Amino acid sequence: MSDYTPGQLVCPIPISEYPKVLLAHGGGGTLMHQLIGKIFAPTFKSDLQQAEHDAATLPINGGRIAFTTDSFVVNPMIFPGGNIGSLAVHGTVNDLAMAGAKPLYLSAGFILEEGLDMETLWTVVQAMQSAAEEAGVQIVTGDTKVVDRGKGDGVFINTAGIGLIPDDVEISPKRIEPGDAVIVNGDLGRHGMAIIAAREGIGFETSIESDSASLHHLVSALLANGINVHCLRDLTRGGLVSATNELASASGHSIQINEASLPVREDVNAMCELLGFDPMSVANEGRFMAVVAPDDAEKAVEILRGLPHGEGAVAIGTVSEGGSLVTLKSRFGAARVLSMLSGEQLPRIC
Amino acid sequence: MSDYTPGQLVCPIPISEYPKVLLAHGGGGTLMHQLIGKIFAPTFKSDLQQAEHDAATLPINGGRIAFTTDSFVVNPMIFPGGNIGSLAVHGTVNDLAMAGAKPLYLSAGFILEEGLDMETLWTVVQAMQSAAEEAGVQIVTGDTKVVDRGKGDGVFINTAGIGLIPDDVEISPKRIEPGDAVIVNGDLGRHGMAIIAAREGIGFETSIESDSASLHHLVSALLANGINVHCLRDLTRGGLVSATNELASASGHSIQINEASLPVREDVNAMCELLGFDPMSVANEGRFMAVVAPDDAEKAVEILRGLPHGEGAVAIGTVSEGGSLVTLKSRFGAARVLSMLSGEQLPRIC
Repeated sequence: MSDYTPGQLVCPIPISEYPKVLLAHGGGGTLMHQLIGKIFAPTFKSDLQQAEHDAATLPINGGRIAFTTDSFVVNPMIFPGGNIGSLAVHGTVNDLAMAGAKPLYLSAGFILEEGLDMETLWTVVQAMQSAAEEAGVQIVTGDTKVVDRGKGDGVFINTAGIGLIPDDVEISPKRIEPGDAVIVNGDLGRHGMAIIAAREGIGFETSIESDSASLHHLVSALLANGINVHCLRDLTRGGLVSATNELASASGHSIQINEASLPVREDVNAMCELLGFDPMSVANEGRFMAVVAPDDAEKAVEILRGLPHGEGAVAIGTVSEGGSLVTLKSRFGAARVLSMLSGEQLPRIC
Repeated sequence: MSDYTPGQLVCPIPISEYPKVLLAHGGGGTLMHQLIGKIFAPTFKSDLQQAEHDAATLPINGGRIAFTTDSFVVNPMIFPGGNIGSLAVHGTVNDLAMAGAKPLYLSAGFILEEGLDMETLWTVVQAMQSAAEEAGVQIVTGDTKVVDRGKGDGVFINTAGIGLIPDDVEISPKRIEPGDAVIVNGDLGRHGMAIIAAREGIGFETSIESDSASLHHLVSALLANGINVHCLRDLTRGGLVSATNELASASGHSIQINEASLPVREDVNAMCELLGFDPMSVANEGRFMAVVAPDDAEKAVEILRGLPHGEGAVAIGTVSEGGSLVTLKSRFGAARVLSMLSGEQLPRIC
């Protein structure tokens, strides 16, 4: 943000560098962070804007609410384990949960392409409501636009969400401390592989279903059981690599991941190897990392394992002082730096 | 909604009737109301959902907030009097204002098409921030997605908004009473004509600029001055005809409009006549109707006239008991029913 001057008329991303928006600008990697850091964040300057969170924390009526937005353009709209409707609920519920909030209300904004099958819209809308009911949130307001054929792609959905942050909850990268344990709630990479398999029509012996799910019940169980949760982040676009790098950068500390402890299903691993993907960079839609006080790590894993979507919880790494680096300690003892990719390996994953 | 059974698996809009989504389903007319009434509203059933309002009223921390969402797909993105960025702020600020709320916070969700000029994005983002500053709201959270070339159209923006409803404010179609005066804050039809002129490259002697503007200062001036405001509605998609029909239907009462008092600029009227549009059905983005107690009508008009975007305020009609009809009393004394169109005359107007 440092090269932005308020009120300047010249685009802070020079034409010579990126004259046009690329698919990678939406991919959760360094190019997206450049777009946010140079264009969005400095322009929409606000004391309440928190670049290090997916949700803003707002004072309302003497309390605090979390407010977040997400647009969904996943292709294909319907995939093993869900569709764009359920995903649109899960994604926004999870953004609220990652701020420590209890999700309450969602909005739903539809951009439909002329010629969309009415039955498909019906299927998507039904899935949204089922996901909302399961998550205990209400879809309270909406909007519909239709664009001409060839100017959209079936259904795009925006969900914005409001949640209530309990008074005693403080989830923030600023609370991350050396020694903290890093926990994930289950196996990695399934959402991305489910999408690409559905998109490209790749058939495997076992079918890979997306992990898409609402996760706020896991967060509230950790908090209710007195776990000292310092920070949370969902492992969406850019996967574990983007999420850990974001938190390392925002906290000023480093994160070490033990490769041997990383939970990746065999079929997901095989598909990743075949297609040249790294499961640590593949998007999930029902996975998050929790950074907790070291003494609470074991108990936190145990709590998660007793709950739906937490059965595969495991501690995968630790925080060390300073550096803002993410390193992977391989099965053979060697360590290498895990840098954020420039874009997502897969466009339109969510 | 009566023909919907919860949990049914069959799409409530029969394939034989509308197998595909049409442009008109997004046009603010009867087809959009059918889509909302048969698919969205009964599925997203919620006590808090208010079909008769563009914003939901939600209890938070002992007070009430208004929550609303709007997606913007206007074509062209940049038009005389604004662009998609300023429009996205004005539209959501106005939805909050129409619920009697003081607009506070906005989210911004971008769906960008691969290949979009980075400079265009910069222009749009700058306009959003200017509009937000002028309206006194903060853009506090955001999201960016990029879709492949040919699957979007430059920039689509979703803005969701949160506003605070003062304790003593109760704006609702239920409060509309026979005898009430209907007031608009200025001349009608400019936004729609500005868009079509820009889209089709029609040049007129005078250039028509969109009326796009934030209107909450007008609402708060009415309330602060003790005007008994029963109901408010912005005159967007479907224009005055859709807005009056919605309120007639929601209130159970009828609305009579005096054609002679309708404020339409001469150049707008000429363009409408040339192109076969009715200025009463053309979308505005800086116009609203206020339904106020009869004794307050004159004072309300006076207050509006003293404020920016209210200079052309005028009383255009009255409410009469029952019937849920909108009628137009022509200059020659004849009366005709003004029915909602099936769709907007102009697609992608906002």
